[in-house]
Amino acid sequence: MTDATAYHPSARARIKRNPKRAEYDRATIHAILDAAAVCHIAYVIDGQPYCTPTLHWRDGERLYWHGSSASRMLRNQARSLPVCLTVTHLDGLVLARSAFNHSANFRSAMVFGTAHLVEDAEEKRRALEDVTDRLFPGRRAELREMTTQEIKATSVVAMDIEEASAKVRAVNVGDDDEDGHLPVWAGVIPVRQVIGADWPSPLLPATTPRPAHLAPFAEGRSLDDALLETAGLWRP
Amino acid sequence: MTDATAYHPSARARIKRNPKRAEYDRATIHAILDAAAVCHIAYVIDGQPYCTPTLHWRDGERLYWHGSSASRMLRNQARSLPVCLTVTHLDGLVLARSAFNHSANFRSAMVFGTAHLVEDAEEKRRALEDVTDRLFPGRRAELREMTTQEIKATSVVAMDIEEASAKVRAVNVGDDDEDGHLPVWAGVIPVRQVIGADWPSPLLPATTPRPAHLAPFAEGRSLDDALLETAGLWRP
Repeated sequence: MTDATAYHPSARARIKRNPKRAEYDRATIHAILDAAAVCHIAYVIDGQPYCTPTLHWRDGERLYWHGSSASRMLRNQARSLPVCLTVTHLDGLVLARSAFNHSANFRSAMVFGTAHLVEDAEEKRRALEDVTDRLFPGRRAELREMTTQEIKATSVVAMDIEEASAKVRAVNVGDDDEDGHLPVWAGVIPVRQVIGADWPSPLLPATTPRPAHLAPFAEGRSLDDALLETAGLWRP
Repeated sequence: MTDATAYHPSARARIKRNPKRAEYDRATIHAILDAAAVCHIAYVIDGQPYCTPTLHWRDGERLYWHGSSASRMLRNQARSLPVCLTVTHLDGLVLARSAFNHSANFRSAMVFGTAHLVEDAEEKRRALEDVTDRLFPGRRAELREMTTQEIKATSVVAMDIEEASAKVRAVNVGDDDEDGHLPVWAGVIPVRQVIGADWPSPLLPATTPRPAHLAPFAEGRSLDDALLETAGLWRP
C-alpha cells in the first residue's frame, strides 16, 4: 500500500472483520470498480434501506450510474443522498478440510459518498457520451447523436469518492494445521465471468460484420479483462 | 404470474421503473436467489447506508448469511435490523443502434426483511451444517464435526422474506423503429459465470481424487446451473 495513493478510511470505511484482507490502495480499488459493469448501491428512504443494482462507470475520482430509485428520490425529495456503492467479483469457491474454513475468493470494493442528480443538460450529455466511450471505445462514432428527448428521459447520478476500501481473498485454502492430514479433497474451484457467443439482432443483415471496436469483447474472454482494457483505452 | 404463489409487494418492493420487467412470482424470485452464491445487503447504522457482499443461502422463506458488519451491529446494539438483500446476475451487454437503447440483460431479486442474529448454539450448528449441505450436498459426510469453538466464532444472520420483487431482461436489443435501418451492428454479448479448472490445495496428495459430490461443479459449466442443481439436491 503506497500511502500517497491510498484512501484514508474513517470508521465507516475501515475494515474490521479479517483486516488482513483489507486494501485501501487507490489503484487496487479503481481496478475492482473498473472490472465490473454492475455495482450495488445502498441508500435510505424514510429509514428503509434499499440495495439497487445498476451499471456504473468511473471517471477519475467520480462515479456515475444510470437512473434508479435513488434518482427518483433525488429528483423529488433531496438534493443529495448518502450512498454506499459496492462492487464484488466472485473468483472462486474455497473448499477446506473443515466446514469452518470453507470460504470464497473474491475482490470487493466499497465506496462511500454523496450522490446527486446530474441535471445540467450539457453535463448529462457528456456523461452519457462517456459511458458509451468507456464501455465500447470507438462505438459512438458509428451511432447517431442522442436526441434532447433521449437525454431528458435518462437519469444520471454522480458521486465523488469520499472514502473507499477493498477486500481481497486470492489464495488457496487456509486449513488449520491439525486438519492438514485429513483425507479430504481441498482446494479452490475458480469462477469467472466469461463472454459468450454473440446473439446478433434478428433484424441485422447477415452480411453485417462485427465491428472492430468490439474486439475487446471476444468470445471466451473474461469480462473483467475486457472491461479493464476498454477503461484503459478510454482514459489511457 | 400465479397469484397464489406470488409475493404481494407494498410500495417499497413494487417496481416503478420499467414495470414491464417486474416479476413477483415466488418461483422466479427463489431461482434468482438460489442461482447465486453472493448477495449484497443494504442496512443502516446511524443514518449511514452500508452495502455489504456476503454468501447467502435460502431455506424456504428464510434467508441466511454469514457474519458481516450487520452482525456486529446486531450483537452490540440492536435485536433486529431492517435490511434489503439483493442478488443480481448479469447475463449480457445489449448493444443497440442508438446510445439510448443500450442496455443489459440481467436477473435481479430484491428482498426486504428484518435481520436477526442466530444466537442459539444448536440453531446455529444446524444453519452452518445447512450451508455446507446446500452448496455441496454430500460433502459434510467427509468432514469432521464442527467444534463448539468454531460455531462460536461464526456469526449467522437470518431473515424471513417479508416482501420481494424481481426484475428480468432476457431479450434481444430493443431499438426504436426508426433506427432499425441504421447500418450499425446490434445485438447481445452474453456473459455468464463459468466454473474453471480446479486449483487443488498444494498439500493434497496427488492421488486424492476429486470427490463425486463435486460433480455439479464441472469445469466449463455455469455456476448458476451448478448452484441450482445443488439447491435441488438439498431440498428436492
